[in-house]
This record gives sequence, C-alpha cells and structure tokens, in this order.
Amino acid sequence: MRALKEEVFEANLELVRQNLVIYTFGNVSGIDREQGLVVIKPSGVDYATMRPEDMVVVSLEGERVEGELNPSSDLETHLALYRAFPSLGGVAHTHSRMATAWAQAGRGIPCYGTTQADYCHGEIPCTRPMTGTEIATDYEANTGLVIVERFKGEDASQYPGVLVFSHGPFSWGKDPAEAVYHATVMEYVADMARVSEQLTGGLQPMSQALLDKHYYRKHGANAYYGQVKRK
Amino acid sequence: MRALKEEVFEANLELVRQNLVIYTFGNVSGIDREQGLVVIKPSGVDYATMRPEDMVVVSLEGERVEGELNPSSDLETHLALYRAFPSLGGVAHTHSRMATAWAQAGRGIPCYGTTQADYCHGEIPCTRPMTGTEIATDYEANTGLVIVERFKGEDASQYPGVLVFSHGPFSWGKDPAEAVYHATVMEYVADMARVSEQLTGGLQPMSQALLDKHYYRKHGANAYYGQVKRK
Amino acid sequence: MRALKEEVFEANLELVRQNLVIYTFGNVSGIDREQGLVVIKPSGVDYATMRPEDMVVVSLEGERVEGELNPSSDLETHLALYRAFPSLGGVAHTHSRMATAWAQAGRGIPCYGTTQADYCHGEIPCTRPMTGTEIATDYEANTGLVIVERFKGEDASQYPGVLVFSHGPFSWGKDPAEAVYHATVMEYVADMARVSEQLTGGLQPMSQALLDKHYYRKHGANAYYGQVKRK
Amino acid sequence: MRALKEEVFEANLELVRQNLVIYTFGNVSGIDREQGLVVIKPSGVDYATMRPEDMVVVSLEGERVEGELNPSSDLETHLALYRAFPSLGGVAHTHSRMATAWAQAGRGIPCYGTTQADYCHGEIPCTRPMTGTEIATDYEANTGLVIVERFKGEDASQYPGVLVFSHGPFSWGKDPAEAVYHATVMEYVADMARVSEQLTGGLQPMSQALLDKHYYRKHGANAYYGQVKRK
Repeated sequence: MRALKEEVFEANLELVRQNLVIYTFGNVSGIDREQGLVVIKPSGVDYATMRPEDMVVVSLEGERVEGELNPSSDLETHLALYRAFPSLGGVAHTHSRMATAWAQAGRGIPCYGTTQADYCHGEIPCTRPMTGTEIATDYEANTGLVIVERFKGEDASQYPGVLVFSHGPFSWGKDPAEAVYHATVMEYVADMARVSEQLTGGLQPMSQALLDKHYYRKHGANAYYGQVKRK
Repeated sequence: MRALKEEVFEANLELVRQNLVIYTFGNVSGIDREQGLVVIKPSGVDYATMRPEDMVVVSLEGERVEGELNPSSDLETHLALYRAFPSLGGVAHTHSRMATAWAQAGRGIPCYGTTQADYCHGEIPCTRPMTGTEIATDYEANTGLVIVERFKGEDASQYPGVLVFSHGPFSWGKDPAEAVYHATVMEYVADMARVSEQLTGGLQPMSQALLDKHYYRKHGANAYYGQVKRK
Repeated sequence: MRALKEEVFEANLELVRQNLVIYTFGNVSGIDREQGLVVIKPSGVDYATMRPEDMVVVSLEGERVEGELNPSSDLETHLALYRAFPSLGGVAHTHSRMATAWAQAGRGIPCYGTTQADYCHGEIPCTRPMTGTEIATDYEANTGLVIVERFKGEDASQYPGVLVFSHGPFSWGKDPAEAVYHATVMEYVADMARVSEQLTGGLQPMSQALLDKHYYRKHGANAYYGQVKRK
Repeated sequence: MRALKEEVFEANLELVRQNLVIYTFGNVSGIDREQGLVVIKPSGVDYATMRPEDMVVVSLEGERVEGELNPSSDLETHLALYRAFPSLGGVAHTHSRMATAWAQAGRGIPCYGTTQADYCHGEIPCTRPMTGTEIATDYEANTGLVIVERFKGEDASQYPGVLVFSHGPFSWGKDPAEAVYHATVMEYVADMARVSEQLTGGLQPMSQALLDKHYYRKHGANAYYGQVKRK
C-alpha cells in the first residue's frame, strides 16, 4: 500500500497547488481494486504538516486497516462511489470556489463550449436535494447514494465529476491524480460558464454535433488527441 | 506578554499571506484574559517592516501599558468586543474584497452551502447603519457596540464574524490565529455566495437540516470532524 | 529550423507563465515562410516536460517533416490561417478563461476602450457557428476556414485574433511570441469588457474618433508610440 | 535628478509588482518643483529590461532635457496635470482591470464604503467624453485638460485620481510612490464597488456622516490615523 499512499498523499497536495482548497478543506482517495482497500486523507489534518504515512487505509466497507488517524469525515461518500462504479480508481472532493457556487445554486454546469466537451459529454450534473432523513442518518453514505442515483443507467467515469446540491464538487478518474485533474477542470469550466451566462441572456448549450466531435476526439475508439490512441 | 505579542504579530502577517489586506489595511489583536491585557497592531505601520516588539499592549479600558507606537485606530472596536464576549481570544479586521463588498451592499451573507455551515450556524450577519451621533462621538467604540447589539442574546463566538455596514468584516476566534482563519473563511464564502446569486435568481438559503448537520458535525458535543472530539 | 523550434517552444511556455493555459491546453506555432515549413507543439504533451526538440515540423500541407510526436490536433486550423494570411508569422490557441467565456457566449468583444483600441481597430470578432457537415469532416481545417471567412476582405493581421464560436480564442502576430502577446491582450480586454457591461446596461462601443486615434497612434505610417516609428 | 530618476524607476516597477500593468502598459512620472523638471518612463520600453538611467527628463513644457529615449506617449497628459495642480509630486497611469472597466463604462466609482472614504472624499470621478477636435489635435494634452476641467474649483490632490472616459485611471500623490499607491487603491475599490452593485440593485453611496468621519480620520488637521498627525 506504500505506493498508493504516496499517490494519494501527492494528489492531496496537488489540491493545494491547484488552488482548489484552503486550510483542511478537501480530500482525495485512491483504491487498490485487487486488495479491495481504499487509501484516504485523514480528517482535519493540515496539508503543510501531513506525511504520506498519515494516509488512512480502510476496507471497502469502511473498516480501518492501517493508520492511527481518523479518516476524512467524507470517507463513506468515497466508498459509496467506489462500490457503485468499478471503473473509478480515485475520488476527490473540494469546495473549490466556482464549482461550489454552482452547487450552491443547485445547478449543473451546462456544456457551453469545447473546453467542457473535451472532458464531459454534456452537462456536469448536480444532485437533487437530500431529504431530512437522508441527512439525519448516515449522511455521508447517503451523499454517495444520491450521487449514484443521479447517474442511474450511466457509467459515472464518462463524467469528470458531479456537483452535490448545496455542498460542492466530487470528481474522479482512473487514479487519484486524474481525480484532482478533473477537479481542476471542473473549477475552470464552472468559472467560464458563469461568465458566458452573464454575457448572453438565455444562453443555450453548445451544438450536439460539436459536443460529440470534441468528446470523441479525446475519448473512445476513434480518439486522435494526444500521442497514443486511447482504448 | 512576549508570547502573545509574537502571536498577534504572526496573525497580522498572516493577513498579508492570505491576501486579505494591502499596505497598512487591517489589524489583529489578542487578549490575555488573566491579566486583562490586549495586544494589538500599531496604527498605520507597514507589514514589511513591523516587528513583534512593535505590538502595543493596552488594558481592557484602552490605556497603553506597553509599546511606543499608537495602537490601531480600530482599537476601541476590538475592546468593545472583548468586553462583551468573554469567549473571544482574538479579533481581526480587514477590508478583504468580497466580504467588504457585501458590507458595502449592507447585506449579511446568506448561508447557501456547507462551506459556510461548517463555520457558521446560518447567515453571517451585517450590522445596522450607524447614526450620525454614533459616528460623530466615540466612533470606534460605537462600531463595537452596534456589533454587540447585532448579536443580542447570542454568543458571538458561534459565528466566525460579522460585517459592519458600509465598512467591512470583523472576525474572531479563540486566539488571534483563529480570528484570521475566520477572516479567510468569510472572504471565501463571500465570493461563492455572490456567484451563486448570479447563477440563480431568488436563491434561498440551504435547508435547515443540512445546515444543522454540517454545523454540528464540527461544533458541539456530537462533533466528529477532525482527530479529536471538540467539547 | 533549430531557431524556430526554440522560438515556438518558448512561446508555448509563455502561455503557461501568462496563465492562459492549464495542463496540456493550448498550442502555439510559427512559420518559416522561405522554406514553407510550420513548427508546432506536439499534441497532449505536458508543458513541464516538453523540450524544444519535441516541436513538430510540418509542411504547409500538413505532412510531417521532422519530429517523432504527433503535432497538435489543432494543426490544420493553424495551417489554414497561414495559407490564407501571408502576413502571419505565428499563431496561438488557448482556452483562456475570459476570452473563452465570450466565445462560449457566441459574441465578439466590443471595443469599449483604448486598451483594446491600441491593438485592434474595433471589435475582436467571433466566428459563426459551424455546420454539422463542417464539424463531421475535416473539423480542424474547417475551423480555420470559418475564421478566414469571418475576415473576408480584410487582412487578419490588423486584429490580434478571433474568437471561435463555442470554442475559444485564436491569436496571431508577426512571430510566435507576438501571437502569445496578443493572446494575453485578448484575455485582458475580455475581462474588462464583461465588467464594463455589468456596470452599464446597453453600453455602446467607444467613439470612432478615439478608436482611430489610439489604433493609429501605434499602427501605420503615423504611429508615434514607442521608440521606433513602425512602417 | 539622479534621486528622482531612481524614484520614478522604482515607482514604475511597483506597477508591475502590484499587478496593475502587463507588458509596456502604464507609466509613472515625478516632478522636481524647484527645478521645474519632470522625470517620466520612456515610451514602449519593457519593465524587465528598463534601467533608472532610461528615465527621460523633460521641462514642464515638454522639452527633453536628459535621456536618449522618447518619453511616454502620455507625457503631455502628465504635464497638464503638473501645471494645473501644484500640489502633485507624482502621476501614474495604468490600464488596471477593474478601474479601467469603470472608465470604459463611463462611470465614476461611487463611494460605497470606508475603504474608499479613507482615500477620497466621495466618488472617484470620471471625465466627460472628449470631442472629435480634442482627440484629433493635441490628444494627450487635451486628455490632461479634460481631467483638469473635471476638478474645476477643487484641489485634485484631495482625490487619489480620476478615470478618463473610455480610457482608464490616472492617479497621483505627493511623490511617484504615492501615485502608484493610489493606483492600487483605486483598483481595489473599483473591484469592490462593482460587486456591491451586483449584490444590491439601486445601491446608494454611503452616508455623508460616515464618509466625513473616515476621510477626516486620515486627512486634515484632526487626523488621528497612523503614528504622526498629518498637517
């Protein structure tokens, strides 16, 4: 687990470098699918003093396997995502400013241009409000379940992430680094989409043809962006 | 008082590092409750050349006990807060951009999401406009009194701070460092709340259930965020 | 080609320094008109690890002449611009935040002040939406053609660049460095124009007299800005 | 003139450090009132390579006295200000983003809070549009004259600066450093005022009593901010 701990540690520090978190905000995890173990940032620990060995190892059911510290209080949300979507290798949660502003507004981010289309085949969705019961009992696990519900019938890995209503973004990827990468991209497109809406009342999402073109230029069997064809 | 002077000095420099002040804007103080002495930044001194020994020590009634320099011109506001709220260990004042913009608009910051709920059990309040008489005589002390008036019946330490109408944020905490921490958080949520309002006309505050959940996840007897239960 | 490779490499890094790109976003090219060869950034390569020798050399028709890596996927757009406008020596493409927000809104940037007038004799134009057919076949080349179409009858080098509808800015100049310079200027004026519109409903472009004055103070036979008269 | 050249050189570099200019934007000058000589940045020279000895010395009538380079193309605006307002010791001109956005909107910055009141006894004014004739002949000198006209009957040094319609801010002070200081303050309050207006439709300027209090706390015979009473 040493390698994954390092990876998760580095991904958490990258949240700071990308200006997505302040203080102890945010958390990143990674999963070792073979062993069924998840590594996650400890709760409420300062990024400046955190060490790779502080990362907490838990089972997919949330039992602590390694580490002295309490895992992130959002652990159960991460676990619900890993259980529901076998394609995910890493999950990140931030309160990054612009993405969180959309979440607070209760709105998904419409796909207004190719920057978003390069990463997401349409809108970055927002979850529904949670019920009082969902909040009162197993809140963090239920946060994961409303995310899963939002993607019903779709593979979440086709999206960079999701906005949780009144809360903020969760993002993911094939590993912890890509989860943070997608957190950065979500913040970037969240900022641009709000300005585009200011500039034109009643703005409509980009054309489906252009959306398809850009998404499939980078994803799927016919992708041709970059140095190696993606499968 | 040497330790508290260092603490107050460091907290003032942190205002610069957190990009909450420019030039000589802003000031932080701390209190030694046992001795009844307050340490505060001197007035109009440059952060780059300021030294720990420049911090001014005054009694709770504002008499200078130590230090050659004039205390911050906002001293009497700090003192009024320390006298009214025995739970405060540090107070910070900035003109940080987004929080000040809300203060200039004469509006408290509605609680639109969990980022704010983690620190404040609802809206970050804004004071009422001061009267001509309050402004003309003992202006700084009266600024403190209108803040105290705004919290009538409540412990101000349940809030990260307040916005003073047409002026800017005051924040506080258990020590000078936490006062600055809360100044940063107020600036952060002020920025997000303005964008959320732009994105959705007539936006309502977050649900009471979610507000309670997040506030009490970090505060009070049943808190479970971080590494140690808070009392 | 060694010198041009270095120039193009440096111009690409400048995109990062000017905060116009993140990750692998963006690309800059330069042309050697005598040899009819274009040098461009490779596709999807990280700025941090990229070396001058990674730059790809292609003919004006897009055949790779030198370099192991795939050229930027936007190559054909660059080539279409070089073929149509013999005055261009460098082309840059970014998804810089504010300029892209205008592109996503489908609007050119009106000329609201002398900052823009110093670089552009009026509005920075936005292309028309591309048709489904243009997107489905030879998308990148067609992107170049809709840009060319937008300038019909004008020399594009009188403009710092263009916004591509639902996409983002392309900019250009006498060499790769000036193309990036213009990308920075476009981002700068895009930011200011959006705020000016927020401040005054129904804002009109600046007066023609002032626009002419500023543009011709820096361009053409009677220019007198700087140390050497421009021809 | 060596000392003033150094001062003007340093003040110009401070424009870069305060993020008020990019590339060759902006210029600062200073005046030696005894000798009647003005020192100003050369036109179109890069901040990174500029040296103190590149500063240009001119008479109050604009004749070059020292220096090989052309003075800033905005020289005549500076000279008009020095001739009209004997209290000015330094002048700065930038296209800083938010102040310029107000200038482009053709609006002065209303005084919405104490941050502005600490530096300006009310609105930071905006000039009227210039006529075609004023633009066509002696444009830069006429820019100075419309500024002077705007302050008719008042000492401009009671203001940190002015916004020139469709153009951008000019600021000033007792020396070049204070001119830049005021340019920074103008950018700061310009940013906050735009957000305050977004937050509250029909926002009114702050109360006259509070405006007076803050302005005279720092200016005039009864000032008590800082370490030394100002005269």
